[in-house]
Amino acid sequence: MALIVHKYGGTSMGSTERIRNVAKRVAKWHRAGHQMVVVPSAMSGETNRLLGLAKELAPAKPGAAYGRELDQLGATGEQASSALLAIALQAEGLEAISFSGWQVPIKTDSSYTKARIESIEDVRVKAELDAGKVVIITGFQGVDPLGNVTTLGRGGSDTSAVAVAAALKADECLIYTDVDGVYTTDPRVVPQARRMERVSFEEMLEMASMGSKVLQIRSVEFAGKYRVPMRVLSSFTPWDIDLNEEARSGTLITFEDNEDMEQAVVSGIAFNRDEAKVSVLGVPDTPGIAYQILGAVADANIEVDVIIQNVSKDGKTDFSFTVNRNDLAKTLDLLQEQVVPKLGATEVLGDAKICKVSIVGIGMRSHVGVASRMFRCLSNDNINIQMISTSEIKTSVVIDEKYMELAVRALHREFDLDQPQDSLAKA
Amino acid sequence: MALIVHKYGGTSMGSTERIRNVAKRVAKWHRAGHQMVVVPSAMSGETNRLLGLAKELAPAKPGAAYGRELDQLGATGEQASSALLAIALQAEGLEAISFSGWQVPIKTDSSYTKARIESIEDVRVKAELDAGKVVIITGFQGVDPLGNVTTLGRGGSDTSAVAVAAALKADECLIYTDVDGVYTTDPRVVPQARRMERVSFEEMLEMASMGSKVLQIRSVEFAGKYRVPMRVLSSFTPWDIDLNEEARSGTLITFEDNEDMEQAVVSGIAFNRDEAKVSVLGVPDTPGIAYQILGAVADANIEVDVIIQNVSKDGKTDFSFTVNRNDLAKTLDLLQEQVVPKLGATEVLGDAKICKVSIVGIGMRSHVGVASRMFRCLSNDNINIQMISTSEIKTSVVIDEKYMELAVRALHREFDLDQPQDSLAKA
Repeated sequence: MALIVHKYGGTSMGSTERIRNVAKRVAKWHRAGHQMVVVPSAMSGETNRLLGLAKELAPAKPGAAYGRELDQLGATGEQASSALLAIALQAEGLEAISFSGWQVPIKTDSSYTKARIESIEDVRVKAELDAGKVVIITGFQGVDPLGNVTTLGRGGSDTSAVAVAAALKADECLIYTDVDGVYTTDPRVVPQARRMERVSFEEMLEMASMGSKVLQIRSVEFAGKYRVPMRVLSSFTPWDIDLNEEARSGTLITFEDNEDMEQAVVSGIAFNRDEAKVSVLGVPDTPGIAYQILGAVADANIEVDVIIQNVSKDGKTDFSFTVNRNDLAKTLDLLQEQVVPKLGATEVLGDAKICKVSIVGIGMRSHVGVASRMFRCLSNDNINIQMISTSEIKTSVVIDEKYMELAVRALHREFDLDQPQDSLAKA
Repeated sequence: MALIVHKYGGTSMGSTERIRNVAKRVAKWHRAGHQMVVVPSAMSGETNRLLGLAKELAPAKPGAAYGRELDQLGATGEQASSALLAIALQAEGLEAISFSGWQVPIKTDSSYTKARIESIEDVRVKAELDAGKVVIITGFQGVDPLGNVTTLGRGGSDTSAVAVAAALKADECLIYTDVDGVYTTDPRVVPQARRMERVSFEEMLEMASMGSKVLQIRSVEFAGKYRVPMRVLSSFTPWDIDLNEEARSGTLITFEDNEDMEQAVVSGIAFNRDEAKVSVLGVPDTPGIAYQILGAVADANIEVDVIIQNVSKDGKTDFSFTVNRNDLAKTLDLLQEQVVPKLGATEVLGDAKICKVSIVGIGMRSHVGVASRMFRCLSNDNINIQMISTSEIKTSVVIDEKYMELAVRALHREFDLDQPQDSLAKA
């Protein structure tokens, strides 16, 4: 008997018919002797509907009080879907009980609309599990120290599920979603992309941070912190497929170092076209310029990703970084008004038509020359690299947006990801 | 400065446009210097939508666990509408905060779907009011001693509002609804029916128990228990009408004994066609028969209203009572199977085509002959009276359903309720 956490997304909970199918799937697991905790999202469309109503009514200058009410509002979607799932499980003849974030409680900080989980009480949930019940816990939400409802932000239900699994020391956390696993890259861009049977936690983290929509990055961080075995699998398989087959499907995110296994150099290609490039040209090369530029940007609550400072020439240097595209105009205004005059820089340039492409792989740790193989591959297709950023298991380049698909396909081929090789698939 | 509680029904909260109007109305009161607490219902249709989903999924034999989930589900409607109203108030430039039942907390027993309020904590609400905020409290719901969400049953938001007003010792509880007050009788039956400016709590209680849909009877009981001044008024007046005019509109439910004021003998005519008559004939007239008959009915959870036992003849008597029409078949089966054989009664008869018509008035306390005036009036129209039941301020008769409108109109005229007399209107 294992303790298993299932997480179902909004599409899986999208109608009473689908909720009934989720109940039948969960019942199958429960009848096989497992203790079951289920974390559902709101019915698809519900959260958008609610936040749409709020937007119609929103004050001109929304403050923290507005955020509090958004969470009070948004959290109702999961409370409703969780109760409906409990009812559907009862109709299957199981005992089931649903808990909202505050009932567990799932304790968070007070950052409305993007709260962070601080702790999860396991007493009540354990008691209900031991009494033979299936326990449903609302995703996406918690309660702050003052008893205010908080939500975790978009995709927060993944994080809820992993955090619950960590708190209960679950044997596995299964994320049922509308894709059947984690792929070497987006199959819409590279039809030859392959599903990985396993992917390391570190690789998953890099892929998630690159905009792979399969898992919310914070859920991966949580899984890593508490070493929760986590599996991404399809919610579209029939509910009555063999349980053992289902339990081996999808992609397992793993924390084991399989040293005996041949590791692929590169496991996947990630990409992201949500960013824009900002360059401050002709900056006097004096100590502290990075802080003077990026400090102002951070103060405006704008997140910065890749950062490059060129070598100095004639006592002047160029400084470039990327921000989210939505923040580009705001960033340029800010630099123009506050930073350029103070620094005496020559010019500020913005470019929204860029994208970031990354190769990700644990194997990069122990292989040399992986990055230069990437650069050569891009150069063969005449793709100009504008910025480079590296980490232990990732190399990212910023290129012209129009070359994105060409680059992803070329790299996918270059690192043999097109090949259905078993040793690779398990890397 | 007064502390005022407003309650808005689902129709008033039915769209963002209407919520905005509610916010403007509340803002008007707040700006006039009042501390404001608002209790909204769910957006119209929302509770039905949610419970409809639950019904689609419901187990064949729903138990208490199902009721728990229904409440967990149903309570989300008010949590959402309350947050939306808080947001709309913020857009009006006011500080506003919404609380769910568990956040106040509004403590109830654990009778899911029909819980009763046991106590209301006022600390947090008072603190927010003193900080200058408008406080929104979800109607219809509370939390039981184990932290489960409970709901109060249909119309429960009225009760929430009055209970909150009682706990906060509010100066007045204003129930905004889709009628502009309490009428001498239903204007759809008697076009001459008049709105009362005031009605005594006792009269309102009798009217509510007779099926007047203006207020939920429990809210009136609550108002009586804690002597909460309560006003029923229209939510359809423009939000920007003069506040003093608005504050005097509708019908005030009052606890004052206006001894100096001429009291009308009868204040209103109530009626109800939801009942059915059951007669057990030829019952041996021995002690305990009422208990033997009604005990069995009560054990089956069937509510009994009017009860009549005829005088005995030849050691036999007839016993009649009314039940809700929906319970008629069940009651007849029960009596036929369990009671008739045991008692040795002759026969059991059921009649669904009856109605109950009542005259209600505090003046009946001090006037004699009011009941016989009622009977004479009905007799003049050849309406046969089947059952009679009296209380201190009410006389009810059960008559053939087809005479209902005729009887109500005749009585409305008989007791001068058609006349727009000011002294009557204020009785």
